[in-house]
Amino acid sequence: MNNDEFRRCGHAVIDWLADYYERIEEYPVQSLAGPGDLRRRLPARAPEEGEPFDAILADMERLILPGITHWQSPSFFAYFPANNSPPSVLGELFAAGLGVQGMLWATSPACTELETRILDWLVEALALPEQFRSAGSGGGVIQDSASSATLCALLAARERATGGAGNHRGGDGTLVAYTSDQAHSSIEKDCRIAGIGSDNLRKIPVDTQFRLRPEELERSIRTDREAGRVPFFVCGCVGTTSTLAVDPLPDIARICREQALWLHVDAAMAGTAALCPEFRGMHAGIESADSYTFNPHKWLLTNFDCNAFYVADRQALINALGILPEYLKTRAGDDDGVIDYRDWQVPLGRRFRALKLWFVLRSYGLEALRAMVRRHVDLAREFAQWVQDSDDFELAVPPHLNLVCFRHRAGDAFNEQLLHEVNRSGDIYISHTRLDGAYTLRLCAGQAHTEYRHVENAWRVLREAAERLVNNNQ
Amino acid sequence: MNNDEFRRCGHAVIDWLADYYERIEEYPVQSLAGPGDLRRRLPARAPEEGEPFDAILADMERLILPGITHWQSPSFFAYFPANNSPPSVLGELFAAGLGVQGMLWATSPACTELETRILDWLVEALALPEQFRSAGSGGGVIQDSASSATLCALLAARERATGGAGNHRGGDGTLVAYTSDQAHSSIEKDCRIAGIGSDNLRKIPVDTQFRLRPEELERSIRTDREAGRVPFFVCGCVGTTSTLAVDPLPDIARICREQALWLHVDAAMAGTAALCPEFRGMHAGIESADSYTFNPHKWLLTNFDCNAFYVADRQALINALGILPEYLKTRAGDDDGVIDYRDWQVPLGRRFRALKLWFVLRSYGLEALRAMVRRHVDLAREFAQWVQDSDDFELAVPPHLNLVCFRHRAGDAFNEQLLHEVNRSGDIYISHTRLDGAYTLRLCAGQAHTEYRHVENAWRVLREAAERLVNNNQ
Repeated sequence: MNNDEFRRCGHAVIDWLADYYERIEEYPVQSLAGPGDLRRRLPARAPEEGEPFDAILADMERLILPGITHWQSPSFFAYFPANNSPPSVLGELFAAGLGVQGMLWATSPACTELETRILDWLVEALALPEQFRSAGSGGGVIQDSASSATLCALLAARERATGGAGNHRGGDGTLVAYTSDQAHSSIEKDCRIAGIGSDNLRKIPVDTQFRLRPEELERSIRTDREAGRVPFFVCGCVGTTSTLAVDPLPDIARICREQALWLHVDAAMAGTAALCPEFRGMHAGIESADSYTFNPHKWLLTNFDCNAFYVADRQALINALGILPEYLKTRAGDDDGVIDYRDWQVPLGRRFRALKLWFVLRSYGLEALRAMVRRHVDLAREFAQWVQDSDDFELAVPPHLNLVCFRHRAGDAFNEQLLHEVNRSGDIYISHTRLDGAYTLRLCAGQAHTEYRHVENAWRVLREAAERLVNNNQ
Repeated sequence: MNNDEFRRCGHAVIDWLADYYERIEEYPVQSLAGPGDLRRRLPARAPEEGEPFDAILADMERLILPGITHWQSPSFFAYFPANNSPPSVLGELFAAGLGVQGMLWATSPACTELETRILDWLVEALALPEQFRSAGSGGGVIQDSASSATLCALLAARERATGGAGNHRGGDGTLVAYTSDQAHSSIEKDCRIAGIGSDNLRKIPVDTQFRLRPEELERSIRTDREAGRVPFFVCGCVGTTSTLAVDPLPDIARICREQALWLHVDAAMAGTAALCPEFRGMHAGIESADSYTFNPHKWLLTNFDCNAFYVADRQALINALGILPEYLKTRAGDDDGVIDYRDWQVPLGRRFRALKLWFVLRSYGLEALRAMVRRHVDLAREFAQWVQDSDDFELAVPPHLNLVCFRHRAGDAFNEQLLHEVNRSGDIYISHTRLDGAYTLRLCAGQAHTEYRHVENAWRVLREAAERLVNNNQ
């Protein structure tokens, strides 16, 4: 494909996507494809000869679209959103097109410096505490996901807890980490990966609002110390996956300070809400956090992957992850004023992901982004009110931010059936969890294009499906 | 940005990139920006109001370009390449534009099934052994980097070596891993991350061609067993970072079979060469490898990030990394015929990276890709011949594939000065390593658009800079 063809084909892809966005509501939100549907239609081997781009473009429509679950549909209410936006897509296009690899400052200074600055912008925009600014001893970095960010936090915490030896001598099975039993599964996965061992992660019980109980945390730490183990890390949740519950960070922070434990805060979904002053209460207590993470690729219109990860003491992170072989030495790297982000993450290589975040923040401006957050929260409250006013459905927990956890009163099996019924309809896509053992439906009003009519339609689809099921079951 | 603006701005970005490719040879290959040059020109905070896209586009030219090191320049000879190509850029654009998140099969079946099939295509295209095909007990997955792939291999190996307990009970400091002292720094970094501990990675001495010495590996394993430690993992290198040296895999594989160790093969850069039958000798011995990885984002025209990672026993990997909380359960996930790739990697979320690889393989076809590999190898041989014929320069090691390691005869300080001289000229960009302690220049002829004239120019630039330095030093 020469440069002229790139222009022509590139325009065609842009137009294809614009057309796609215009017709996105016509598709079933969740793909109706069955296992193997695409696999069976793909050739067994790569072609020997090149094919024209138009053939590939046609296959996007014919082969790929039927297997797509439309995360950008305004009727996508499942999980948490993974929103893109026109500016973020164009930022990613630039990153791919420039094709720079920002492992070192020297391998593209703009890639590093834009990232540092944009992550400082977010500290200010979210009113995060000063220790996360790059001007001091901390700073921010873009990771692919909160899973990876929390892994890096664990490694830095281990480095600090073991006086620098932890990453050299290997585990001895004594380090213990703590989080709530509602924390994301990635915390446990990270403990496995880091060789802490999932058995050495304490999942602390929660209160009736699914918030970690600080007295249980203290008790667990005490028990571990008495048994000769070494508590070193607590992950507090600002917005759990199941219910967006917010742990009592001020209490947790106090415990961490008293016990000299690393406090990591996971605000993967909820963090974006801190754009709005009225939602910043959830961050109370993070003034002494050692690390913090949230996902612009969820609620901040920046396409996956784009996680923002902050540390108060970047040196602990660099000590944990920095290895400098001869072939990566650069003159600039010897200069203290320069960040080599390879030492802040698991992989060596890195894309120019700051571009898309920069494009989003500049294209929308903070006011428009705050308005989006508020609109989503209002939509969720509206939906929660309908649930509360209904005879057949009930709220599982008071809604927080843009997430509503609810269920039909007819019990677990019915709710599970209902979930699959509405998802198979293609009209909407929701997901589920279990709260205190009970099967619970989750509706997150967070897709960029979701309006009142989509939430209203979701409620209609749910009620009608429930009525059909009730009638069928009778 | 509404949909009409997305069309207009999208076309503008495509045209910007096409223009960029046309003028790319006019830029200094390595950015001449100094530390802070960009940082100082960026506002201190995000804007409150949105800005027009044209202002952002203008800043790409004004602010970003001066800080770009041009990895897509045909005179980029540093490190290893990180090539993109028009089809891969458009594949990435589709991935960003569709914005699907393929953590589970159900969250976009096409994302998973295309990936599985394309990685099977590569098994065939590179003549990799049967155990890596998805039809059996193994299979392939796209990771962000070889660092992450090797980390996953370590975790799966630990799972197997400890009878499934290793990821639960935490490290006990007895597991030992082995690789050559020429292996990539990510192997050591991964051992740290996984809590194996870098002290428990044995860096086995190499022969005069920088290939692991099997008898030293055997001796080291024996010593560790005698000391009560538990050898469990060997990483063989097919193409080391410094010299593209190929370890004697048949011997290493025999040792791994005899000792029941996990054999992982890192062919990050060199793997692509196996497209050509004449280069497949380097893979001899991988018939019994447990895992294998190479980077299409290096030499296969697929923009970063795109690493291909294969395991012979996918269950070991899934056992190490699989955690299934209620909120991720799907009906399809219960079906054995379905892959949920979240259990094959560190992060939970994933982009639709298979698209770009699919676009590349179809747009070029295997014949054109083989021709590219052969062209680069020929260019490197040509360059190596010039070095060999010169009075002032010498080869540090016989060239392998498309990499030439060489040096001026005037010693370490001179070569270091020479490197910085030519890189600061902006005409070419090369990198360095140390071999047996000696400062060595590396020229990798692997950028997609590199032609004879660019390599010829590199040689001229090097000779002229050396002459200037000799004269200045006199």
